[in-house]
This record gives sequence, structure tokens and C-alpha cells, in this order.
Amino acid sequence: METVDQLLEKAKGIIENGSNEDMNVLKQVLDGIDGKRRGKYNTYITAFMETEIEENGAQLVMTIPITPFLANTVDIVHGGFTATLADTAMGTFVNRKIPDDKVAVTSEMKINYTAPGVGEFLKCRAEILHLGTKTSVTEAKIYNENGTLVAAATGSFYLVPRKA
Amino acid sequence: METVDQLLEKAKGIIENGSNEDMNVLKQVLDGIDGKRRGKYNTYITAFMETEIEENGAQLVMTIPITPFLANTVDIVHGGFTATLADTAMGTFVNRKIPDDKVAVTSEMKINYTAPGVGEFLKCRAEILHLGTKTSVTEAKIYNENGTLVAAATGSFYLVPRKA
Amino acid sequence: METVDQLLEKAKGIIENGSNEDMNVLKQVLDGIDGKRRGKYNTYITAFMETEIEENGAQLVMTIPITPFLANTVDIVHGGFTATLADTAMGTFVNRKIPDDKVAVTSEMKINYTAPGVGEFLKCRAEILHLGTKTSVTEAKIYNENGTLVAAATGSFYLVPRKA
Amino acid sequence: METVDQLLEKAKGIIENGSNEDMNVLKQVLDGIDGKRRGKYNTYITAFMETEIEENGAQLVMTIPITPFLANTVDIVHGGFTATLADTAMGTFVNRKIPDDKVAVTSEMKINYTAPGVGEFLKCRAEILHLGTKTSVTEAKIYNENGTLVAAATGSFYLVPRKA
Repeated sequence: METVDQLLEKAKGIIENGSNEDMNVLKQVLDGIDGKRRGKYNTYITAFMETEIEENGAQLVMTIPITPFLANTVDIVHGGFTATLADTAMGTFVNRKIPDDKVAVTSEMKINYTAPGVGEFLKCRAEILHLGTKTSVTEAKIYNENGTLVAAATGSFYLVPRKA
Repeated sequence: METVDQLLEKAKGIIENGSNEDMNVLKQVLDGIDGKRRGKYNTYITAFMETEIEENGAQLVMTIPITPFLANTVDIVHGGFTATLADTAMGTFVNRKIPDDKVAVTSEMKINYTAPGVGEFLKCRAEILHLGTKTSVTEAKIYNENGTLVAAATGSFYLVPRKA
Repeated sequence: METVDQLLEKAKGIIENGSNEDMNVLKQVLDGIDGKRRGKYNTYITAFMETEIEENGAQLVMTIPITPFLANTVDIVHGGFTATLADTAMGTFVNRKIPDDKVAVTSEMKINYTAPGVGEFLKCRAEILHLGTKTSVTEAKIYNENGTLVAAATGSFYLVPRKA
Repeated sequence: METVDQLLEKAKGIIENGSNEDMNVLKQVLDGIDGKRRGKYNTYITAFMETEIEENGAQLVMTIPITPFLANTVDIVHGGFTATLADTAMGTFVNRKIPDDKVAVTSEMKINYTAPGVGEFLKCRAEILHLGTKTSVTEAKIYNENGTLVAAATGSFYLVPRKA
């Protein structure tokens, strides 16, 4: 592992030589690591994606800002992030509905992309279609700020004992 | 946007107060931004995931190390990363097979998870099942270092004109 | 090809030796072939499934009775029929929404089964999530007569020129 | 239920007034009901599809002739049959690999169509990707007689206690 000084030198190097996008991403990941450390997020990836959660009756709504960090090679949101958003929103919702001694683990997911991920933010609306004692089936619809459907996903989860 | 000094302060804060995992992730994202800047990777997410590509006849093989950055809330690789790995490997392979004036855009993907993502690395083997003039259908199998199948994916891509 | 007399002998053989289920299925397929011949159905499989269609604003609703013909080896509706119902309902809806010189061809479909297909009938509610000029993305939910969700499907269609 | 005479009248009506395709389908379903009755097939749908099974090491191969019964509205094999073939081949293979007191029930399936189902027959090659104690994940590739890939499917199965 590198020393503290080496890490700081790397950060300085990016700050001095990086593009605006690099600086933007650096800020985002520093804030993300910090947010994870202070307990605002429970994974690095949701911290870097800046997920905001709101529960709304039969829906869990998870929103993320569209940032340079999310871009794919043609400058729209990488489909992997859209899939991660859907998976996380669906899984979070299932986890909120099951006993504390269980945890929901994704067994499969499918996503259809219907419009490019561009604009200010993506809003994912997750719903539970079936909740049994061992499995759950869910769906999620992801919209941009104009209400255009960007992606539609379905997923299955195993409900397994949470390890102590 | 924050000043250079503020960014460096944030980095110092993480270095002084963060966990070993935080430090590990900080190093990884600093190296990632640097690698993206120097052209080693063409997106931030593949830079952070440290994707290595090898083409192998009928397969494109994409490998990533399993790092704390990838962890979900139960300390295995977040399924979103596994999906991102499959999507990226399949899309990269299709892009290598089509004319330069076209680009492959994911239209849908499905992934089945068959074993937890734990261990040293994940190796994704992507294959092209169908390559037409307007669409392609692909599959990917993801293995851990013991050769255990961790996930299996299929995806479809639209082949659209690349913007100038 | 067999002669008329041979076919009638076969029918007689089933009538004399078959179970109640065999007779039920025989009646169903005879009515189905007849319904197809008289233009009530446009394929044998929808005729045998006795699909009824109702368009209902943003939904196309396709209903089928649950009959012995549909049974799998454990006496619930074979998942293949549930998939056929979803595919047909989604495709029929897309075909109604596109110009006459085009036809919708399924490019992919995924279905999750959430409850066994038992009871009086299955009711499939199909919706169009995205309708472009070349492709469409749809979803379908299938319920039994108690309103329990039996299956949820999503599908994609290519919109191709209809052959003269 | 109709009387024997009424059923025979219906059969005669089809024979006298039906098209060649109607006659072909009538013969097929009569043979199918007969084959089911004599135990050659264990469901009506596989009897009507005339499935032939061959186990081949790591693959179960299920073949069906392409007949008018299978046609959709544009005279290629209805995607629902292709899905039924994949589902049945995958499920049959899993059922052969598990203890007799359990039965495999499809929990989800996805299928991508890569070429039209035309020609003499469809050959489905099913493989098991994962076989646990409670679930199994499988894949199937469907080819026409020229070896062209017609469809690729993946599916999941719950392994549940077989009812007495």
C-alpha cells in the first residue's frame, strides 16, 4: 500500500493535470468515500452514484443525478449504472419488507433500455410483484426528468438467512 | 466547484480518518482517474473496475480484480458490477466486429447469478450469437478464479450510426 | 397423407378409448380448427387456446380458459402457454398500433412465474412501454380469476416491412 | 359435453371443408392425443409438437418437426412454441438430474430470437449451468436444420417436493 504522501501526490497530480470532468469525478468520489464513512451510504457504488431514496406507498423511488462519472463511451449513462440503479432499488425495497434476520440476494435481473440516459437525473420506481417466504419478484421503471421511460427492469431475489 | 485546496483537504480527511477499505478505494479511484486521463480506459467505471481485455478467437475475455469498491451490503460483489462487466464485455466485442461508422448500444440484457462473487477476480467470457447489420445478440459467462460460474448473461445491441 | 376414412377411424379410436381429458381436448382442437377455418382465430395455437381479446385504452387484455390441453406434467398450466399468451397479447397490441405495411416480430421475451396457473382462466394485460419506428418494448401481467399475479413478462419487437 | 356423434360430425366437417393445412393439423392432433394416451408423451402440447428427446452427455437435445400447427400469422414458427420447446427441454433435463421426490418448476425464462423458425425442424440443445439443492439455472440454444441459431434461452427452476 502506498504512503499517505504518495496518495496525496496522486490527488495533486489529477488536480493539476486533469480535465474538468476528472475534477468533477474526483470531487464526487471523495464526497462518496466520505459519505460512506459517515454512514450516509452503505456501499461505495451507491455513494458514488449519490442515490437518494424515498418510499412512497407501493413504490420505492431511488434517484441519482446524471454526472460525468456515469458516462459510457458515447456520453450517455452506461447501461451498467442503469442496471445497478434498478437492482439496488428493487433489492432495497425487498429488504425493507422482509424480517431482519433475512437478506435479499438478486438471483436474476433483466433490463430493457428504451431511451438514452441523458439530462439531469434518473428516477427509478421499484415495485414488488410477488413476495413469498423464500423468493421475491420485482419490477422497476426508470425515467428521466421529462418523465420519459429510460429503462424497464424485472428481477428475482432469494431471501436467505442473514449471517450473524 | 470547490477549490483545489478544498479538494486536497477532503483527500487528507479521508486519509487521516478513513478505514483501510476507504484508503484502498481512494487509491483505486485515483489510479482510475489517472488511467482514464492517460487513455488506458475509455470510461471512469471501467477504470475503477480495472478491466483487462483479451481477445481469444470467438471470445472476448474481460477480467476484473475483486476489490472493496465492488462490495454490496453483504460483502460480495454487487450484482450491478457483475452486470456492468457482462454488458461492457459483450458491447466491446460487438463494437470490435462492426464497421467504424457504427456503434453498438445495449437494447436489453438479462443476467442470472449462480454463485456469490467472492475471491480474487472475475473473468467474463463474451461471445457473439448473432451479428446482423442492425442488431446483435450476445452472451457472457462470468467465472471466479476457481472456474465456478458466477453469472450468465445474454444481451441485445442496436448497431447505430456513430455521431461525428 | 392418410385418407379421410383413416382420419375418421383415428377420431373414433380416441372417442372410444380415450379418457375424459382426451375427449375434452379432442373437442377443443376440433372447435379450434373450425374456428381458425372460419376466420375467428388467425393461428391454430390461439384457436386451441381460445384466446379472447378486448382492447381497453392503454391495455390489450387477452383471456384464455384453463383447460386440460394446457396442463404440464404436474397439472398446472405449462409455462410455455403462459409465455405464448404473453407474447401473443404483446405482439397483437403492437401490431394494432403500427402502420398496415409493417408487422411486429418478437425479438426477445422474458417471463417470471409468480403463482401456479390453476383455476378457471388466465387474463393477460399487455401494455406498450416504448413504440419507435423500428422497435417496440412491451410488458404483460397475467392474472388468474382471483386477481393473483401468475406471471409478468417483458418483450421487444422489431417492426419490419410486411411481405406482400 | 357433446355426444360421440357430434364430435364425429365435427371431424367430418373439417375433413370435408378444411384446407390441406387443416387436414394436416387434424392428423397431427389426433396422433398427438393418441400418443399421449399410449404414454409416448406426458403432455398434450409435447404430443402435438412431436418432441423427440435424446440425451447426449452434458446436453439434452429435443427436436420437433416444423409443421403448419406451429405457424404464427406470418408463417414462421410462433415464438411461443420456440419458448415452449426451450422451457420443456431445460425443465426435462433438470428433472432427470434431481431426486425422484422433487420436481423442477420454471421460475423464469428469457429467450432471444435470432433467426426465423423456418425449414424442416428445430433442434434444441439444453445445458445445466447450475444445479443446487433448491434451484437450477439452465440455458438452451435452438437451431434449424442448417445449424443456424434460431433462438437462445436461459431459465431458472425451483426444485420443489413432488406431491404424492
